Amino acid sequence: MNIIDRMAAAILQKQNPTAVGLDTRVEYLPEGFFKPGADFQKSAGEAIFDFNRALIDIVCDIVPAVKVQVAFYEMYGTEGMLAFKRTLDYAKQAGLITIADVKRGDIGSTAQAYANAFLSGTPAGDKTLPAFDADFMTINPYLGTDGIKPFTDACSQNDKGIFVLVKTSNPSGGEFQDLVANGIPMYEHVGRMTEKWGEGLIGASGYSAVGAVVGATYPEQGESLRKLLPHTFFLIPGYGAQGGTAEGIAKSFDNKGGGAIVNASRSIMCAYKKQPGVRFDAAAKNEALRMKDDLLSALGGRIG
Amino acid sequence: MNIIDRMAAAILQKQNPTAVGLDTRVEYLPEGFFKPGADFQKSAGEAIFDFNRALIDIVCDIVPAVKVQVAFYEMYGTEGMLAFKRTLDYAKQAGLITIADVKRGDIGSTAQAYANAFLSGTPAGDKTLPAFDADFMTINPYLGTDGIKPFTDACSQNDKGIFVLVKTSNPSGGEFQDLVANGIPMYEHVGRMTEKWGEGLIGASGYSAVGAVVGATYPEQGESLRKLLPHTFFLIPGYGAQGGTAEGIAKSFDNKGGGAIVNASRSIMCAYKKQPGVRFDAAAKNEALRMKDDLLSALGGRIG
Repeated sequence: MNIIDRMAAAILQKQNPTAVGLDTRVEYLPEGFFKPGADFQKSAGEAIFDFNRALIDIVCDIVPAVKVQVAFYEMYGTEGMLAFKRTLDYAKQAGLITIADVKRGDIGSTAQAYANAFLSGTPAGDKTLPAFDADFMTINPYLGTDGIKPFTDACSQNDKGIFVLVKTSNPSGGEFQDLVANGIPMYEHVGRMTEKWGEGLIGASGYSAVGAVVGATYPEQGESLRKLLPHTFFLIPGYGAQGGTAEGIAKSFDNKGGGAIVNASRSIMCAYKKQPGVRFDAAAKNEALRMKDDLLSALGGRIG
Repeated sequence: MNIIDRMAAAILQKQNPTAVGLDTRVEYLPEGFFKPGADFQKSAGEAIFDFNRALIDIVCDIVPAVKVQVAFYEMYGTEGMLAFKRTLDYAKQAGLITIADVKRGDIGSTAQAYANAFLSGTPAGDKTLPAFDADFMTINPYLGTDGIKPFTDACSQNDKGIFVLVKTSNPSGGEFQDLVANGIPMYEHVGRMTEKWGEGLIGASGYSAVGAVVGATYPEQGESLRKLLPHTFFLIPGYGAQGGTAEGIAKSFDNKGGGAIVNASRSIMCAYKKQPGVRFDAAAKNEALRMKDDLLSALGGRIG
């Protein structure tokens, strides 16, 4: 089954288009959760994984996916990367769809190595060994088609998916992305190419395994991209802490309430800070349910 | 001493503007060099590091820098990342300037985590611990200024540098990079911003710690960027295997024969395949010396 169809089915079944973002840092952990040992990086990696595991355990029945931001793991070296791998593996085993938010992009031969690392595994004698195995990874498009092909090949051969950065959620995102060439902004050029890269990978849901990252903080651009890219599934960051609202985000969904998944990281991981007396995991679940209701309401009760 | 001044001084002293690229894959290793053990990833990481160490030992007196492409290490999981770290550390200890070719880029808070990972180290109680410590890292500019600032801050505070992707060496590089907005191509917009991002980081050499990646395969664009960006040091990939020539590359140097460093990976690592009977490390040295002469000659004998 095409990964994007699995994504659409999981959203429909759970009636929730939310990906919990595990951008976990030790400063986010509840007081007393992290006790540094002699090897700080090792104990940080272990504490971060323990926290992620508790969150995955409590949200796996109510959300379809998690998004794991690799930067916060890389900064703890190989021990951090071990926590990244364990988090992806644990989420998968818990039945969640996994998105490795790695924003990789390079020339063809190097892009192939990244595709091995996150999507297809690496040749190892007569076997193939996974490195950091995820269902989806995020991709930076700056290098163009020959830097994308190894990823789309990996999608096709291994039932995996990618999300290409089209319109990012940050304030400076428009600096290059909004520059107008041939009458249309750069992000629209990238969006149109994203739709094209997915042509051979469209599933029964009508969406392709080549999705787009479209920030919640730019709802009008999201709305125009939604119309322009009928087969492109959107990953929408920027809800909550970054200022994106459910009403704005709803414009990036199709008229059946499908075609997109919304990420929230800090607001769910740190929900316990706003719920005194509630355990961190229970607080995260409360916030995930509140977010689900918020999105459901903005979508007029129709999901997927 | 500003890292870019150290780079310029090392190039001048060794009369060689070459960075050896360690994009090491097990398929590149000489026959018999790699013997897979029970843990394939571990033995691959160890063999790759052993190969890199031998190359570093033999070229450290004749080249100023190495560039290590992380993708080929990520694809072997945490064991690969350990080899990446060991390679960076070993090259530094051998007196070489290290470039982590990671092409990271993300929104501000995440870019900060990447800056920790590769440039400044990560807060760990009352200390700061390095993760994958390099002198320079490569950066993808698609997210604009707020995704760059954490890196330039890290450069300023830790005497580090970055190379921003401006005009990449691959065939599809122009797909988005050559689109013309407001009368100038996208890569030029990025180039001008790169010059600006480096304004506060200019060293005695006249160059800033914020450099640009400019592919050897586009010599005319390199020439125009050289004129347009007087304080921007260039990292030039694409020599040799990708088709870039010394004559073309010379146009990206300033009129003193400085302002750029040229990377070659495969042609040096796999030089032994074209030198029967010569050990792989000696063959790599021969090729590095041949490349130096090739560049020196194209630059009219003036380096740095």
